[in-house]
Amino acid sequence: MSDTLSALLAPRSVAIVGASDNIHKIGGRPIHYMKAMGYAGTIYPVNPQRETLQGLRAYPSLDALPQAPELAVIVVGGDAAVQAVADCARLGVGAAIVIASGFGEAGENGRRQQDDMVRIARGAGLRIVGPNSQGLANFGNGAIASFSTMFIEIPPKDGPVAVVSQSGGTAALVYGLLRHQGIGVRHVHATGNQADVTVSELALAVAHDPDIRLLLLYLETLTDPAVLAEAAAVARARGVPVVAVKSGRSQAGARAAASHTGAMANEDRAVDAFLARHGIWRVDDAHALARCAPLYLRGWQPEGRRLVVVSNSGASCVMATDSADALGIGMAPLAPPTQSALAGKLPGFAATANPVDVTAALLTNSGLFGDVLPIVGADPAADFVLLDIPVAGMGYDVPRFARDAAQFADTAGKPIAVAAWQESVAGVFRAAGVPTFFHAADALAAFHQLTAHQQLLRDIAGETAMPTSAPAATVPARTLSEAASLARLAKAGVPVVEHYLCQTAEEAVAAWQRIGAPVAVKASSPAVPHKSEHGLVALNCNSRDAIVAAFTQQTQTLDTLHAPCEGVIVARMTRGQRECMVGAHWDPTFGAVLLIGDGGKYVETLRDTAVLLAPASPATIERAVRRLRIAPILDGVRGDPPLDIAALCTLATQVGQLVYAAQGGIRSVDLNPVMLGVSGAVVVDGLMEVAETDFLGECHGVGLRPSPTTW
Amino acid sequence: MSDTLSALLAPRSVAIVGASDNIHKIGGRPIHYMKAMGYAGTIYPVNPQRETLQGLRAYPSLDALPQAPELAVIVVGGDAAVQAVADCARLGVGAAIVIASGFGEAGENGRRQQDDMVRIARGAGLRIVGPNSQGLANFGNGAIASFSTMFIEIPPKDGPVAVVSQSGGTAALVYGLLRHQGIGVRHVHATGNQADVTVSELALAVAHDPDIRLLLLYLETLTDPAVLAEAAAVARARGVPVVAVKSGRSQAGARAAASHTGAMANEDRAVDAFLARHGIWRVDDAHALARCAPLYLRGWQPEGRRLVVVSNSGASCVMATDSADALGIGMAPLAPPTQSALAGKLPGFAATANPVDVTAALLTNSGLFGDVLPIVGADPAADFVLLDIPVAGMGYDVPRFARDAAQFADTAGKPIAVAAWQESVAGVFRAAGVPTFFHAADALAAFHQLTAHQQLLRDIAGETAMPTSAPAATVPARTLSEAASLARLAKAGVPVVEHYLCQTAEEAVAAWQRIGAPVAVKASSPAVPHKSEHGLVALNCNSRDAIVAAFTQQTQTLDTLHAPCEGVIVARMTRGQRECMVGAHWDPTFGAVLLIGDGGKYVETLRDTAVLLAPASPATIERAVRRLRIAPILDGVRGDPPLDIAALCTLATQVGQLVYAAQGGIRSVDLNPVMLGVSGAVVVDGLMEVAETDFLGECHGVGLRPSPTTW
Repeated sequence: MSDTLSALLAPRSVAIVGASDNIHKIGGRPIHYMKAMGYAGTIYPVNPQRETLQGLRAYPSLDALPQAPELAVIVVGGDAAVQAVADCARLGVGAAIVIASGFGEAGENGRRQQDDMVRIARGAGLRIVGPNSQGLANFGNGAIASFSTMFIEIPPKDGPVAVVSQSGGTAALVYGLLRHQGIGVRHVHATGNQADVTVSELALAVAHDPDIRLLLLYLETLTDPAVLAEAAAVARARGVPVVAVKSGRSQAGARAAASHTGAMANEDRAVDAFLARHGIWRVDDAHALARCAPLYLRGWQPEGRRLVVVSNSGASCVMATDSADALGIGMAPLAPPTQSALAGKLPGFAATANPVDVTAALLTNSGLFGDVLPIVGADPAADFVLLDIPVAGMGYDVPRFARDAAQFADTAGKPIAVAAWQESVAGVFRAAGVPTFFHAADALAAFHQLTAHQQLLRDIAGETAMPTSAPAATVPARTLSEAASLARLAKAGVPVVEHYLCQTAEEAVAAWQRIGAPVAVKASSPAVPHKSEHGLVALNCNSRDAIVAAFTQQTQTLDTLHAPCEGVIVARMTRGQRECMVGAHWDPTFGAVLLIGDGGKYVETLRDTAVLLAPASPATIERAVRRLRIAPILDGVRGDPPLDIAALCTLATQVGQLVYAAQGGIRSVDLNPVMLGVSGAVVVDGLMEVAETDFLGECHGVGLRPSPTTW
Repeated sequence: MSDTLSALLAPRSVAIVGASDNIHKIGGRPIHYMKAMGYAGTIYPVNPQRETLQGLRAYPSLDALPQAPELAVIVVGGDAAVQAVADCARLGVGAAIVIASGFGEAGENGRRQQDDMVRIARGAGLRIVGPNSQGLANFGNGAIASFSTMFIEIPPKDGPVAVVSQSGGTAALVYGLLRHQGIGVRHVHATGNQADVTVSELALAVAHDPDIRLLLLYLETLTDPAVLAEAAAVARARGVPVVAVKSGRSQAGARAAASHTGAMANEDRAVDAFLARHGIWRVDDAHALARCAPLYLRGWQPEGRRLVVVSNSGASCVMATDSADALGIGMAPLAPPTQSALAGKLPGFAATANPVDVTAALLTNSGLFGDVLPIVGADPAADFVLLDIPVAGMGYDVPRFARDAAQFADTAGKPIAVAAWQESVAGVFRAAGVPTFFHAADALAAFHQLTAHQQLLRDIAGETAMPTSAPAATVPARTLSEAASLARLAKAGVPVVEHYLCQTAEEAVAAWQRIGAPVAVKASSPAVPHKSEHGLVALNCNSRDAIVAAFTQQTQTLDTLHAPCEGVIVARMTRGQRECMVGAHWDPTFGAVLLIGDGGKYVETLRDTAVLLAPASPATIERAVRRLRIAPILDGVRGDPPLDIAALCTLATQVGQLVYAAQGGIRSVDLNPVMLGVSGAVVVDGLMEVAETDFLGECHGVGLRPSPTTW
């Protein structure tokens, strides 16, 4: 943990600027919390109107304190807050938390004041959390520099979870949901406008806390991916799962985020790719953020995803089976000895196959769950048990059920979750330490997350660590001609179709003769990137006349369009089996982003594509390709031969590497189609955009020029 | 309501065979409930060991009763239950509910006993609910012939909802979830094994109850769709929404259902189509069944689906906006006067665009929600308001918030829902009668359901009522040759490609000459439905030599395969823009089922298809087509002209009508591709399966025979 962040998370002294005697006011609550939570450092209330405050000596100003505090919590607003930051900077305070709203999120004046604060603080090495922050709370040492009322609603208990959030409301909500489940929470931090300290930085700091075993993040914007990547790496090394909401997925959501914390929009699929690349599991909302915590904290590492459902309702068995199927979770096929053992315990009309319906006989035999659980748990096919209790209460020995479930949870080495919506039932299981969910769909979603997240972590374990991207280039971009684009790709080793750039009709005919097969004739001009819409593509030309006619017509069309002609491309017609697409672009936040998927004319409409960060290995790309809708087609259906997916993935790796290496010099690469065959993949059509300052892609009208790769 | 079902739902007298003095036993609980709920009829406990029981005179046997009861509840099991049914039949009892398990769901012996019961009952006009039933409960008249413990857990309150379920556990669960939301429930009926009375029959009966305003169904199997369709029609006519779970969606789920209530599997997409056709909204589980109830019961009919989010958390605003977008719910664009009015009420840094973040200022101004709600509600763009309160409690005037929300709900004429996970908050809103959900995603899912269900009901309002399908034909089926299939389709008026069935090479050449354009040559044999796999298709033939060669090769191949040759089809090569597919088959439960979607070789892999019941109007089919992934392509993207969707839908209507009219005589029709062009759609390839007894499709080797339709 860096020194400045330790001033935020473990300060030896805390001043509250704008302190209040009233524990229900924002300036009073942190003092109350710190006293109640046994904070061992010194608390300095700053309030010019009071001698003492909540039993502590108060001071009229920061200057009046006996020492510079390590941390200042600034409750006052507007210019007074800017002044307090200046005072902190002058006095050598380590860090400040600015609580007040009305800054960067609230118009020009607020933005200016926020900028002033940051400039003053940076000059003095002072770190700032906020403004517009609910504050930070560390229940490990009682440093509660937060005014959240949720700590009154549900009493704190120190524990293994850290919540770091741009939003104070969401930090409090997630804290509340976790505590409602009986889970202890150590860190509850909210960064607000993030004028200085970000969620990523605090995530990195708390990832080092040896007691933390789960890290939950809420992000509205992501400006420092390298820091978050480092936090994720620290957490991974320690076996700490990281789960994140990155809100503003939708355009409307991104606009809402901009007005909330002034968040800049990120490209959402790039966010997906970034988080996945670093093993961070993305969920959609705050409730989902807390949901899987009971399973993560048990440390279960199931071998597979095969479920056993045990319930006292046959219908719930059926519905849970359907819900599991929708998540791609299969039912464990119980072995004959398991079923025989179950038959010895269950009434004659109960089901001994999976799902296991103990029936209403549970009312007369309270030991049924305890009988059944060890039997199904011992079956090697079972990876996870869902105990679904839609109906219980009077007449049911719920405490015994809970003891039996807890016994299983503690000894079986396999995950168990209970679904029970009645609080009188669920509470008993929670108190026994059994992961408990409102309904089966919730429990199954959590199990899906646990196993899919663990699979993701295994998948990325083989990837080399991604280097940090350079900041975005801001120079304008220009489009290269197709000939220049293909040349640039070929130079980078990307397989492109055999083609020749021809300046005369006779050169074109010669190119066709050299290829010795039907060709495509395509005019190449940087001014006309979309050729077919202007009749600048002629396919399947296979005679001197056809080629001369195409050449003549296309060069005339370019004349009519007043577009410069770099020449006419004569390219071999390819015989690939499937038109795929590979694209890449330079994202201002995440750097090189790769797109791969189904190609052809309708790529934008059918959108069967995957997004990854580059550089990416062929193995990583292949995992993504195998999740496409067209994946079975690539593997060969209805008598088709399997296509060369490996070649496609290698090609994509090369394209990703090319854009990554250019560090913003190449803005985008759009290859469609990449023709995928039974052996090999080759670029047939390609366009690149480069920075204005990039000259590598220039194409100086050379004559009959063979491409380096043929296929 | 039929007389026999009134004996179940409003009996004037009830005997309990196997009555118990212990109100916690199955034989004791119904008596206890009926006494507690003010049942006004006569209760006859039957128990040979007791003189009196729960303060009532007991009788040693059904024969000993002073009169035949209208309803008998049979708690005893096994052969005693069969005997009790026989006694009821002999004595003229109107209806019996068989509670005991161990019958049809539990092996051969139980199945035999169940069959005995039904045979005895049918002979005497006695209706049976169960066996393996939890019983029926009518809180409108206190006739509680049910042993559910849930009525003890959450006290009953009569109200506007009916729950009819094959599963007792699910009936109790849904009852509990509704009551937990403060909603009154009148009917809670469970049919168990459905040896006689089905969910559909009880649904039809309660749909006539004038006090019922919402009907919730749980089905594991559906054997009497005509009855359910009638129930849905009665409900629709009364404005009562019907929501159903039909479990066993997945194969594993269907197996689980079979072992639970002996349910026969239905084809799941046909179930979807059936329920949609009758305006029944399908959900996935019991929790979803109860979820939308608070919105339905308000009777709101929003004009559109544009949302306003109001929250005291900016982050919750962003997440709710994202969640709405994922459901296809857009944010209402608030008019400038609305935003100005909001600005007059909100602190300067709060957002006045939608979503509306009142910020933590709510802590100091408890009237903010009350200020904001009428303003946004008055904006014509707002169809629905979500009040999302992720954090509240001490310091917040929750009762005031609830009053303000209730005021809006009662006066604005637009739906409002509150999202609040803290029970201390949610309970206050529920008590005020405001629809309240655990989190925003739940509330939005409910709003989505409300509006999408209402749209579905509008959509089907124009459809003619579907006639009842005849029972399934059980004779074997056979495949027709392509020539016979095309002939049959053409006879029904379905546009098929111009083609000729030729017996000699010379006939084939003559056909090509008559067509005057490139042709496809395809051998036609009922023994070889998949021609291309055997090299029996030659495309783009456009010379005498090519046609003679194709004819010769194909007839030789059929010889080699020892397949009968009906001739060789010579068909015009079509120039359609998109290969679509239309299929139909005869479902043993639902009758004619229609499939329409993207065609071509990969139709099974890409599965971009819609399923509807036939007959279906072109308008209904077009709504389904417009939900396909390829829909934008059909409308024309990237310079393509729009295709003739109307012609495709008309063709599909004809195919559906053909299969419907045959009432099982045609087993299936598989048309792929149907070539869709800018004007018209035409079948290029078609195969039919018909019942062995069907001779209409025979094709008796006629010579050069033109198809009736060309295109």
